[in-house]
Amino acid sequence: MAGSVLGEVFRISTWGESHGPGLGVVVDGCPAGISLAEEDIQFFLDRRKPGETKYSTPRREGDRVKILSGVFEGRTTGTPISLVVENTSQKSKDYSEIKDCYRPGHADYTFDAKYGFRDYRGGGRSSGRETIGRVAAGAIAMKILDLLGIRIRAYTKQIGPFVCRREFMDEGNIEKSPLRMPDLEVSAQAEEYLAKKMEEMDSVGGVVECVVSGMPAGIGEPVFGKLDAALAGNLFSIGAVKGVEIGAGFEVAQMTGSQNNDSFYMAADGSVKKYTNRAGGILGGISDGDDIVIRAAFKPTPSIFQKQNTVNCRGEDIEIQIKGRHDPVIMPRAVVVVEAMTALAAVDKLFVGMTSRMDLIQDFYRRRDCKKE
Amino acid sequence: MAGSVLGEVFRISTWGESHGPGLGVVVDGCPAGISLAEEDIQFFLDRRKPGETKYSTPRREGDRVKILSGVFEGRTTGTPISLVVENTSQKSKDYSEIKDCYRPGHADYTFDAKYGFRDYRGGGRSSGRETIGRVAAGAIAMKILDLLGIRIRAYTKQIGPFVCRREFMDEGNIEKSPLRMPDLEVSAQAEEYLAKKMEEMDSVGGVVECVVSGMPAGIGEPVFGKLDAALAGNLFSIGAVKGVEIGAGFEVAQMTGSQNNDSFYMAADGSVKKYTNRAGGILGGISDGDDIVIRAAFKPTPSIFQKQNTVNCRGEDIEIQIKGRHDPVIMPRAVVVVEAMTALAAVDKLFVGMTSRMDLIQDFYRRRDCKKE
Amino acid sequence: MAGSVLGEVFRISTWGESHGPGLGVVVDGCPAGISLAEEDIQFFLDRRKPGETKYSTPRREGDRVKILSGVFEGRTTGTPISLVVENTSQKSKDYSEIKDCYRPGHADYTFDAKYGFRDYRGGGRSSGRETIGRVAAGAIAMKILDLLGIRIRAYTKQIGPFVCRREFMDEGNIEKSPLRMPDLEVSAQAEEYLAKKMEEMDSVGGVVECVVSGMPAGIGEPVFGKLDAALAGNLFSIGAVKGVEIGAGFEVAQMTGSQNNDSFYMAADGSVKKYTNRAGGILGGISDGDDIVIRAAFKPTPSIFQKQNTVNCRGEDIEIQIKGRHDPVIMPRAVVVVEAMTALAAVDKLFVGMTSRMDLIQDFYRRRDCKKE
Amino acid sequence: MAGSVLGEVFRISTWGESHGPGLGVVVDGCPAGISLAEEDIQFFLDRRKPGETKYSTPRREGDRVKILSGVFEGRTTGTPISLVVENTSQKSKDYSEIKDCYRPGHADYTFDAKYGFRDYRGGGRSSGRETIGRVAAGAIAMKILDLLGIRIRAYTKQIGPFVCRREFMDEGNIEKSPLRMPDLEVSAQAEEYLAKKMEEMDSVGGVVECVVSGMPAGIGEPVFGKLDAALAGNLFSIGAVKGVEIGAGFEVAQMTGSQNNDSFYMAADGSVKKYTNRAGGILGGISDGDDIVIRAAFKPTPSIFQKQNTVNCRGEDIEIQIKGRHDPVIMPRAVVVVEAMTALAAVDKLFVGMTSRMDLIQDFYRRRDCKKE
Repeated sequence: MAGSVLGEVFRISTWGESHGPGLGVVVDGCPAGISLAEEDIQFFLDRRKPGETKYSTPRREGDRVKILSGVFEGRTTGTPISLVVENTSQKSKDYSEIKDCYRPGHADYTFDAKYGFRDYRGGGRSSGRETIGRVAAGAIAMKILDLLGIRIRAYTKQIGPFVCRREFMDEGNIEKSPLRMPDLEVSAQAEEYLAKKMEEMDSVGGVVECVVSGMPAGIGEPVFGKLDAALAGNLFSIGAVKGVEIGAGFEVAQMTGSQNNDSFYMAADGSVKKYTNRAGGILGGISDGDDIVIRAAFKPTPSIFQKQNTVNCRGEDIEIQIKGRHDPVIMPRAVVVVEAMTALAAVDKLFVGMTSRMDLIQDFYRRRDCKKE
Repeated sequence: MAGSVLGEVFRISTWGESHGPGLGVVVDGCPAGISLAEEDIQFFLDRRKPGETKYSTPRREGDRVKILSGVFEGRTTGTPISLVVENTSQKSKDYSEIKDCYRPGHADYTFDAKYGFRDYRGGGRSSGRETIGRVAAGAIAMKILDLLGIRIRAYTKQIGPFVCRREFMDEGNIEKSPLRMPDLEVSAQAEEYLAKKMEEMDSVGGVVECVVSGMPAGIGEPVFGKLDAALAGNLFSIGAVKGVEIGAGFEVAQMTGSQNNDSFYMAADGSVKKYTNRAGGILGGISDGDDIVIRAAFKPTPSIFQKQNTVNCRGEDIEIQIKGRHDPVIMPRAVVVVEAMTALAAVDKLFVGMTSRMDLIQDFYRRRDCKKE
Repeated sequence: MAGSVLGEVFRISTWGESHGPGLGVVVDGCPAGISLAEEDIQFFLDRRKPGETKYSTPRREGDRVKILSGVFEGRTTGTPISLVVENTSQKSKDYSEIKDCYRPGHADYTFDAKYGFRDYRGGGRSSGRETIGRVAAGAIAMKILDLLGIRIRAYTKQIGPFVCRREFMDEGNIEKSPLRMPDLEVSAQAEEYLAKKMEEMDSVGGVVECVVSGMPAGIGEPVFGKLDAALAGNLFSIGAVKGVEIGAGFEVAQMTGSQNNDSFYMAADGSVKKYTNRAGGILGGISDGDDIVIRAAFKPTPSIFQKQNTVNCRGEDIEIQIKGRHDPVIMPRAVVVVEAMTALAAVDKLFVGMTSRMDLIQDFYRRRDCKKE
Repeated sequence: MAGSVLGEVFRISTWGESHGPGLGVVVDGCPAGISLAEEDIQFFLDRRKPGETKYSTPRREGDRVKILSGVFEGRTTGTPISLVVENTSQKSKDYSEIKDCYRPGHADYTFDAKYGFRDYRGGGRSSGRETIGRVAAGAIAMKILDLLGIRIRAYTKQIGPFVCRREFMDEGNIEKSPLRMPDLEVSAQAEEYLAKKMEEMDSVGGVVECVVSGMPAGIGEPVFGKLDAALAGNLFSIGAVKGVEIGAGFEVAQMTGSQNNDSFYMAADGSVKKYTNRAGGILGGISDGDDIVIRAAFKPTPSIFQKQNTVNCRGEDIEIQIKGRHDPVIMPRAVVVVEAMTALAAVDKLFVGMTSRMDLIQDFYRRRDCKKE
């Protein structure tokens, strides 16, 4: 309830600060029998790792993950999986000067207001490094989704005024763009824009889009446990997110019912399909079998190197000039966090959804008993 | 977990279908000693009640609430408060023809996919009437906030292309506008637009904005329990919401850090303030003492009276023409639901926040013991 | 968290006071497709109803249950089931004289210490009538267990010094004994003992035993989510329970490992069995396929008609003589509550247990998709 | 929900297997500002550590705890505290021979029934070493209780037929007895008895008693969230516990109301007291200000070195003779686990209890705002 436990069935507890000994996560509720190795998790951690391009903080961390429990002879055992990543490149002295002052756009002031004091080194718990535990747990969720035929892919849709064009987006381009923008022409323009802003010691915002494909219809709970509510809550829990939309999103405000409704039709394979997908794959909080499309707006990195007005914890107005190592744009790395948070919501709702029908429960226990003999 | 329980400390369980005997809610976790009468709750139910204007369904319901438990001699006792509203104006025959078919934009198909069958009368549990329980519980949350000096006010910010202008918005106008738009000139324009769309047997979308004032700094939990994540999850749980944004919202995508950061300064009263509020009152998931500003985009009512293509539950492509009683615009009534869901998140986080500091906990128990003697 | 919500997947919220308008429960998490009528629930409510024998309070309540939601055309829909029982026989004046004083053995003082005041009429929320919601929800859990081939049966094992003898216990006798003691000879002796104590204006304690048969092996979670921990927590939540034991229970303290261990053997049908069942059907918190045997010790009803020393809420030492309507023995009615609480724990753990193995989850979703077509 | 997360406000997630790289716990919900060092935790881990006396397994583990997060400059920060203990003395080959067979009294069979396979090394997750995470988290809970003036002390009350006599029990003796029995004469007799059973290659059971003093009246939630239900659930989650009782416990079955009721009186200091404490400090699930007295019955260690009948996972009847390192009596070490589980329940309920009265909540927020300035 204090905030670092997430999920109802597939439940994760993250921990760790930017400049403490390490960061990690405990996953309780992972089923037994899933093949899992450190490399499966490392793959995702490497994708979010800093220091890979000129657009991320030059802090270099190996971010090597270790599995401390819950896996035996290469398979999950059903017991909690503890994952740890050591911090190896902390430079605490970089932060000593901001110890007493509240950086604009950061959580320094609100942490002090809440807790009375804070671990000021590198943002402590409110650092972007906190997402390591999420990504590590998300990697396991991705494995589960893969076994159920479900795929998640996120990318940078927009940076500043530069928006990928649907018709020029190619998933194969995502990793070719240093900004993870699947429209390479727009990506190049965004790079120029970013270079200019970096020269001006400024940072930029943007939008990450995430698509879930292969989700069966009927997942998500009505009323408060809606799939979109879970996805939105999960994405809003990412540091810099200021908006989330699903399907047509905020455009629906300007549409009429006849424009926005997606008509159903019967597909050749006997399944129910929609001609369009303005719903973004979710109706009444429950998946409709279509792609789930969700977008999150990220604010520009608050750590900029320009002088800014602020106050210190002694109640004095001051000027501050932030030093240290900071990403001028976080979307390229946030893409991996968005995938993780989406995967965590999806797995949790898939697991919750197993008790919606009594006939399926009876069938489950009948077959489970047979399997054992 | 099945979706109809919300909250961690101030926990509500809603129940009821559009055409069942009634709807209601059980509130567990309401502190003892709050003055509470049925009229306190009725006030909010009346504001969301159908049949009040030409823009809402002509279904007329008294929507009279009864308190069945948890209140003794006019005060809450600390035990669960059960609230019930009877359905009195069901016309089930209106719906018999849609029994077997899936209305576009509705949850008919997804409920069938999830549960194998559904209570088709008036949308059953996915009806807008489901929000009665939320509004009733929200009324109690509003009472609690009031006792803590916190105020919540929502209004229609936008309908179709018509957006209230910040400088012409006056809270006193909200209830003067049949659309609950606080810019009366824009409201009049939106009414014309709406009239035209109603003639065309169509419906319209829009945006509701909600402002929380008086929230102390330091409320909300870091990482997953963020105040914005809770607010967003709560708003996304409202039927027609397709997007939620906080503060500058999606505009941050086009801003730079120097444009978006809110600088702090010391106010005359010794408190920390921000020159601007692009953050929307929340930094790092924790309230900063400023107004919390949140917006939700509502899709146009999916029930339109035009002919639409769809399928039935026998897997046939069909045409459907919806009858019955439906709002051509839901924002005016949704305003009350947005307030309720915001209040529920705020109270829950205020209660959760009481254990963030050991010195305050010690102080609490020291004083509690004294008070008793 | 405030205490009236129970369960993780099959989640119930009870509400109601002894002398309020009624009592009830909302069940969230009941699967769709279960045949359910008011009579199914009434059967259990009638078994716990007061006024049936000379050993229960002469307060006569019809205790008629109404289903207000979640059932459509005789089947559960998967949405919350709201059940209500009206109070019809309140005699509030009986209690006016105990308004200000703390009855020994009751929760009067502790409610005041917690909430600052209390609904003193008939014990308010701490009345035995509070169990109506439990029994109503338990009736639904019983239906689910029945569909999975699991059976629960409780009975009075002991009253005062009179203990049913294993070899003379016959399940068919339970309802033949007014004390629900399945050893009729012992039951007759206990009746004599009870009559004597009633003459002395006193009350008696006892033990209820409950047997769950047909539970598949492998149900329950390790560490904190143990099946026995859930059962014990549920039974300890019943008002008068002061002890709970499983299998050999407190006798294990005097046993050695060689005496207590149950040896396994292979049964003719290929299943794993134990020669004995001192474990009570649970090993390491997980069911072993054997009968689950659990016992709860009930204290004598604290409401006795003798004069007792106590204090009032003004801090004065006083003498009190309780009037009103009270059971001199509660085990016969508590039997039904024990069954309900056991059923609620069993269903919850069965539902939780559906995600323990990835191969079974994959199988579930594969088959679910096929079934729909 | 999968079992390794405990608590509602003070929430812990334990992880680790007997023969994996280590064990640990993440504590989410610990307030900021508590002085905390590794030694505070080490003190309790050393008390439960194996290898200290002839009555515990000769496996020698340093069991050194490391704090990986949540503490800054010697004080808790309010963010999750991650604690890790490395396994250093695993001897996995000892267990290879039991890989395929089900030890009587152990969870081998039930883990296989649940998960399809298991980490068989040293019992894996069902090993007694799993309690390391509990004790480490419990140490933090103990610190919190200490700051609130609450004290917890457990000891071995009974081993086999040897029961400490109330009048000869002295808390100062607990650590003087190798069995942690505070009646030294009885402790000596129990030692003789134990020596004899060890010669016979057998093990013994017993009872641990735990006393909580200084708990304010009014803690615990009515109905399901009762303090006794939480304590009982927590104690039943300890591996070998087969029974739990509070106050007079199972003796109440043989008592009458006039014998069992504790009469109230006004103490000189103006507080409400009871002449006796058969209630064990809890009435209606809520603390009454008196000592809370709770007992747990522990079964004899199932690992005995005699030959036993059992089956293997291929469905064959076999004989087994267990080797390895096992405690012939677990009560002396279990004492520390009982204290930890009691402390965890107590802290959680104290924190939950902070929202029971609106006047206290208003007072809290009023004072919190003042303190900040």
